[in-house]
Amino acid sequence: RSGEMAKMTQLIDNEVFRAYATYTTIILLKMMLMSLITAYFRITRKAFVNPEDTASFGKGESAKKYLRTDPDVERVRRGHLNDLENIVPFLGIGLLYALSGPELSTALLHFRIFAGARIVHTFAYLIPLPQPGRGLSWAVGYAVTISMAYKVLKTALYL
Amino acid sequence: RSGEMAKMTQLIDNEVFRAYATYTTIILLKMMLMSLITAYFRITRKAFVNPEDTASFGKGESAKKYLRTDPDVERVRRGHLNDLENIVPFLGIGLLYALSGPELSTALLHFRIFAGARIVHTFAYLIPLPQPGRGLSWAVGYAVTISMAYKVLKTALYL
Amino acid sequence: RSGEMAKMTQLIDNEVFRAYATYTTIILLKMMLMSLITAYFRITRKAFVNPEDTASFGKGESAKKYLRTDPDVERVRRGHLNDLENIVPFLGIGLLYALSGPELSTALLHFRIFAGARIVHTFAYLIPLPQPGRGLSWAVGYAVTISMAYKVLKTALYL
Repeated sequence: RSGEMAKMTQLIDNEVFRAYATYTTIILLKMMLMSLITAYFRITRKAFVNPEDTASFGKGESAKKYLRTDPDVERVRRGHLNDLENIVPFLGIGLLYALSGPELSTALLHFRIFAGARIVHTFAYLIPLPQPGRGLSWAVGYAVTISMAYKVLKTALYL
Repeated sequence: RSGEMAKMTQLIDNEVFRAYATYTTIILLKMMLMSLITAYFRITRKAFVNPEDTASFGKGESAKKYLRTDPDVERVRRGHLNDLENIVPFLGIGLLYALSGPELSTALLHFRIFAGARIVHTFAYLIPLPQPGRGLSWAVGYAVTISMAYKVLKTALYL
Repeated sequence: RSGEMAKMTQLIDNEVFRAYATYTTIILLKMMLMSLITAYFRITRKAFVNPEDTASFGKGESAKKYLRTDPDVERVRRGHLNDLENIVPFLGIGLLYALSGPELSTALLHFRIFAGARIVHTFAYLIPLPQPGRGLSWAVGYAVTISMAYKVLKTALYL
């Protein structure tokens, strides 16, 4: 079975694939961080959505007042959903792009710009920065994904 | 290193994998289009959710009235979320299916029907078409994903 | 072409990869089940969001009263979104982890705990169980994903 393992690790030995693995993991960890930030704001703002989450604040009306929306919580949640909407395409298209034989330097450029843009987008959303800060960072990540999609379709197109 | 690159591109040279790459890229680009449609409706309907997005309309009360929900914006957003809920399973199960050694013609059938169903679903949601148009297109994509999942589990099951 | 097919199936013949394929498929099917549960509650609670979905209940005011939110529907939808937020990172990081050459027993431990935690999370959300049931099951899945991300970065880091 060690022969098979050796074949498997060929993929992770490839530099483009290693770069994809690195930046994808970083950007997915960043997305996961949104869950912790949401939890932080829910607890500090005392703004919950599930009745069972407020049980520690007592019963009945005293707990019910914490079942409410809070602008900061909702802001983090919108940032989280925007991450999902943009990181899922990167996950899929980026993997196919990494397997389509791009130049290492070109691939690194794509991955680094995407990861940077999404990190800037998160700060722009949470601080918040005045527009077009958030809009531009979103557009940069979007454009990088389109560019990778173009390369995938040029290399692999099979309809 | 060119030897490793050659090994890498074996994956993208495989016809089933190329078909997966093609249809996955197409359907992820379609999902990404939902972001642009949402932005289009937010701007034309003047319906925003973040205060910083309305700053160009002036300050105070004059800008605040644009912080509202709009039925068309919400409709696109529901379509986008439905895409996420259904395309994420396709992304994962489809990749594993493509690696499970299906017949090329069978794989193409799965990928084409899924992509077609999701495109019809988008039109059915946005026009909107009367039911069961949207429901049926959703169910077709769902059934295709279940069929691929069955093949993956039959081939690879290791609990 | 059968030579290429043989190379392709090497991936699915690897036991760690087969385990990843199995648990990923199971957990994506579980996530897809949330769509059916949402539909079930929408129909039994008569709580819809799209006007075209209520057309079978008649026209005008008689149908409009079914355009409403229902606590049970909203609960399932929150569980579904939480799945997306946590299963998408597992999908990406888990794939890279499976390719990073972990011990089979360690990999199985990660996959089994993640899948178990997400299934418990779903029950905890839908029953609902008192806290910290849901919180703990969420945290276990989160921790497993972080552990896999650590292994990926340790093996593949290429910035």
